[in-house]
Amino acid sequence: MAPTVVRIDHNSPTGTLLDASAPLIRIDDEGYTRGDGVFETMLAVDSQVRKFDLHLTRLANSARLLKISDPDDAAWRQATALALESAGPGTRTGLGVEHTVKLLISRGTPDEGPYGLVIVSGVPDSTIEQRENGVRAMLLPRGHDPAEDTSYPWLLAGAKTLSYAVNMAVLRHVKSLGAQEAIFTASDRRILEGATSSVVVARRDQGRLTLFTPEPNHGILPGTTQGALFEGARDSGWDVGFGPLYPKDLMESDGVWLTSSVRLLAPVTHLNNQALATSPDVTETLMGFLRSR
Amino acid sequence: MAPTVVRIDHNSPTGTLLDASAPLIRIDDEGYTRGDGVFETMLAVDSQVRKFDLHLTRLANSARLLKISDPDDAAWRQATALALESAGPGTRTGLGVEHTVKLLISRGTPDEGPYGLVIVSGVPDSTIEQRENGVRAMLLPRGHDPAEDTSYPWLLAGAKTLSYAVNMAVLRHVKSLGAQEAIFTASDRRILEGATSSVVVARRDQGRLTLFTPEPNHGILPGTTQGALFEGARDSGWDVGFGPLYPKDLMESDGVWLTSSVRLLAPVTHLNNQALATSPDVTETLMGFLRSR
Repeated sequence: MAPTVVRIDHNSPTGTLLDASAPLIRIDDEGYTRGDGVFETMLAVDSQVRKFDLHLTRLANSARLLKISDPDDAAWRQATALALESAGPGTRTGLGVEHTVKLLISRGTPDEGPYGLVIVSGVPDSTIEQRENGVRAMLLPRGHDPAEDTSYPWLLAGAKTLSYAVNMAVLRHVKSLGAQEAIFTASDRRILEGATSSVVVARRDQGRLTLFTPEPNHGILPGTTQGALFEGARDSGWDVGFGPLYPKDLMESDGVWLTSSVRLLAPVTHLNNQALATSPDVTETLMGFLRSR
Repeated sequence: MAPTVVRIDHNSPTGTLLDASAPLIRIDDEGYTRGDGVFETMLAVDSQVRKFDLHLTRLANSARLLKISDPDDAAWRQATALALESAGPGTRTGLGVEHTVKLLISRGTPDEGPYGLVIVSGVPDSTIEQRENGVRAMLLPRGHDPAEDTSYPWLLAGAKTLSYAVNMAVLRHVKSLGAQEAIFTASDRRILEGATSSVVVARRDQGRLTLFTPEPNHGILPGTTQGALFEGARDSGWDVGFGPLYPKDLMESDGVWLTSSVRLLAPVTHLNNQALATSPDVTETLMGFLRSR
């Protein structure tokens, strides 16, 4: 089933519904020819987008790094409402009826310039399954330390761009090894992030669980779901902390999860084919922290 | 004027002409949503593609790194002939009538899978002008050393992918400084390559000019034009050599050029706003080395 697409541009500043059963993108669109654009992927439950503010803030930051004009928040909200109204039936889960909502800005064609799109579709079954059954993850060297790039704005560290070929190659690589996600490590073996997720670790100390995640702002994309999870945990009186984390910390933890906006929270059942501690109760508690966010 | 586009897929293995005045790309094309594809840009003079073999070899290598199926060489040649036959008038220069010919492979949509495109258009005036009047270039740190990535195939070092947002950001950055190209340096200040070109330096020793370029195979994309230039130079009895080169070597050289397939050869007139030695005679000689290639 074709997704539902609403386009925002200077002719339709609050969005026009397009027919996505036909091709929509021109051959000289620089989003296509150069991966020159930015995006956010969000989850809507019963037509309510979760963490809309956080995603709009991160999208605006990505757009700023690429020096590409960004529709204002009101336009995105109006266009998203139109897309969700017009969307297909979505995916029914325990949370409600779910849709993925992708916001995308492309630099467009040299003639017409930049535009925004809201793209709404169902949530893939494989994503729902990862929430329930967890994922197998592999540690994978990230090559250079992304922190080395953060001083140079033209390297776009921290921008979520359409230039995602490496992330896709990484997922293909780990799939060929029987896993579903990669967890990147720096050259000193420090844990960075998943190819499409943030890494969260629970550690029990004197009976109390504390959540940890690698230090942000070192070339790691700040995870909106990890942020919401930590906020929820803090509100419930849990302690949270920030890395550095090493493979040993994951192996010896009381639970590892990958967080991302649509998948929400997926327990890591195996790391490099080694079984990790998992606890359905703790996963349920963490899902509760996310529920209202 | 819309470019001329020929598509190769399993329904039309030697290519079908498309109408590029309408949108051609679907919204869920992973070339668009993920920059998940590869490309080559070539120059045709009087409908003859230069260095076609070298480009097809590099395209096949990029496709192999991305694990994406690649039309065979005969299909590319047939589709390119069809596109050039159907193309607009092109750009008339001293070399003849010029067209740019882009070969592109996208992973396509989940439903339809990968396809190839041949996209033919005229050569931009700004490109022709760079051949004649040269370019101003800025040295720009590449952040990490690309050599660090070459051991990990999933990082796609050496693949020319549609994920080109960083290269575009680099060009915007140097344009904001009044220059047209960036020359990347490693953290030890070693010269790497231009954002969209290879770097060639001439040095005179006892009256004889020798050409140098940074050592290949350290995360630098091997330049087909630099390769052809060195072959032509060697055939004419010149010596050629390989880096490491440092900024001082460029500043104190007897000429620096940026080579790329459509621009061919552009003398660098200024590096970081400092005038470099230029010699129209040597540029003319080097163009001669390229002429038959």
